[in-house]
Amino acid sequence: MRLHGYFRSTAAWRVRIALNLKRLSAEQVSHHLRRGEQRDAAYLRLNPQGLVPALELEDGAVLTQSLAICEWLEETWPNPPLLPADPTDRAHVRAFAFAIACDIHPVQNLKVLNRLRALGHNDDEVTAWARTTIEEGLAACEALLRHEDDGPFCFGTAPGLADLCLVPQLYNARRFGADTHALPRLMAAEAACLTLPAFQEAAPERQPDAE
Amino acid sequence: MRLHGYFRSTAAWRVRIALNLKRLSAEQVSHHLRRGEQRDAAYLRLNPQGLVPALELEDGAVLTQSLAICEWLEETWPNPPLLPADPTDRAHVRAFAFAIACDIHPVQNLKVLNRLRALGHNDDEVTAWARTTIEEGLAACEALLRHEDDGPFCFGTAPGLADLCLVPQLYNARRFGADTHALPRLMAAEAACLTLPAFQEAAPERQPDAE
Repeated sequence: MRLHGYFRSTAAWRVRIALNLKRLSAEQVSHHLRRGEQRDAAYLRLNPQGLVPALELEDGAVLTQSLAICEWLEETWPNPPLLPADPTDRAHVRAFAFAIACDIHPVQNLKVLNRLRALGHNDDEVTAWARTTIEEGLAACEALLRHEDDGPFCFGTAPGLADLCLVPQLYNARRFGADTHALPRLMAAEAACLTLPAFQEAAPERQPDAE
Repeated sequence: MRLHGYFRSTAAWRVRIALNLKRLSAEQVSHHLRRGEQRDAAYLRLNPQGLVPALELEDGAVLTQSLAICEWLEETWPNPPLLPADPTDRAHVRAFAFAIACDIHPVQNLKVLNRLRALGHNDDEVTAWARTTIEEGLAACEALLRHEDDGPFCFGTAPGLADLCLVPQLYNARRFGADTHALPRLMAAEAACLTLPAFQEAAPERQPDAE
């Protein structure tokens, strides 16, 4: 398998964690997002959305969208699982993942921030937009875990789909100066994740294209 | 089951279609988004994200995030399916759904448009933001179907997760004046969907809270 990504893309990072948790390896192909390489014609033929990640399979199929790739990994290599077995529990884990992947990340990604700059907003305003998006979104995520007392991960004693969305998003939170003090449950889950090689080895600074 | 929604919320609309396709019924509870009722304390206890939809189950569990609810419906009532059987095919359908649910809808929803207004942008600028988001996003969706020649639905001869995301998003496209002429494959899928009672009965104007 070949994973098209970028060291700092939080969406590609999710897939790196998922691959590591499943003990799978993929060749990494880097597309420099700030230089716009994800819009190159050759890459658009692979992924018309012009986004990373994309996962090229041995049979030539190309999978896109980080959470669709994670679901595919889960269905193809079920162990260790990224989702619990009970349908209601699975729905809660997915809802947490979507609360990050739909409602936080796309509203603070590079594309949206560049559009704000193009509308005349300065760096302070753009950073405030990202920070507010992340703070409001993570406060809701903290509340989504209000009945999850066990831990140490977002949902129980093993890491999964929620955790692999959380850890990259918290990196972005700090990058934009978001306040994380009111997020004790998320901080505890992150701390548990960061003890695991699957998370450590997926970190941006450990990737071959890290700058 | 009780579905908390709003007639014009495209996320709630997705779940209405999914319920109809599965031939399930749910009591509808409306939360007026423009009046901010989704931020009422009583609703926040159900869904700390303060978003619709939420699906209350008979056992008291509350499911949130439209696509997590759809996956739960799929796992709980598998027939008729919203997803194909093959894992790679499932990944393509989910990627299309996420291309709308992550990369279009959250960047053009009411909350983001209100934030742009609060930053001083006028109606024309706000509408242009939504229109551009939708046009670029749907162009990518059209390209994602470039190998799906059969139809008439997004992926094959039966409607599913991709279609139930597409139809509400096309409603928003028209609402913001987006150009849909370059989207023949999406238009054909929408036309096929709109012949079906499951889609007709889920339309905003058919809901009890329609204005």
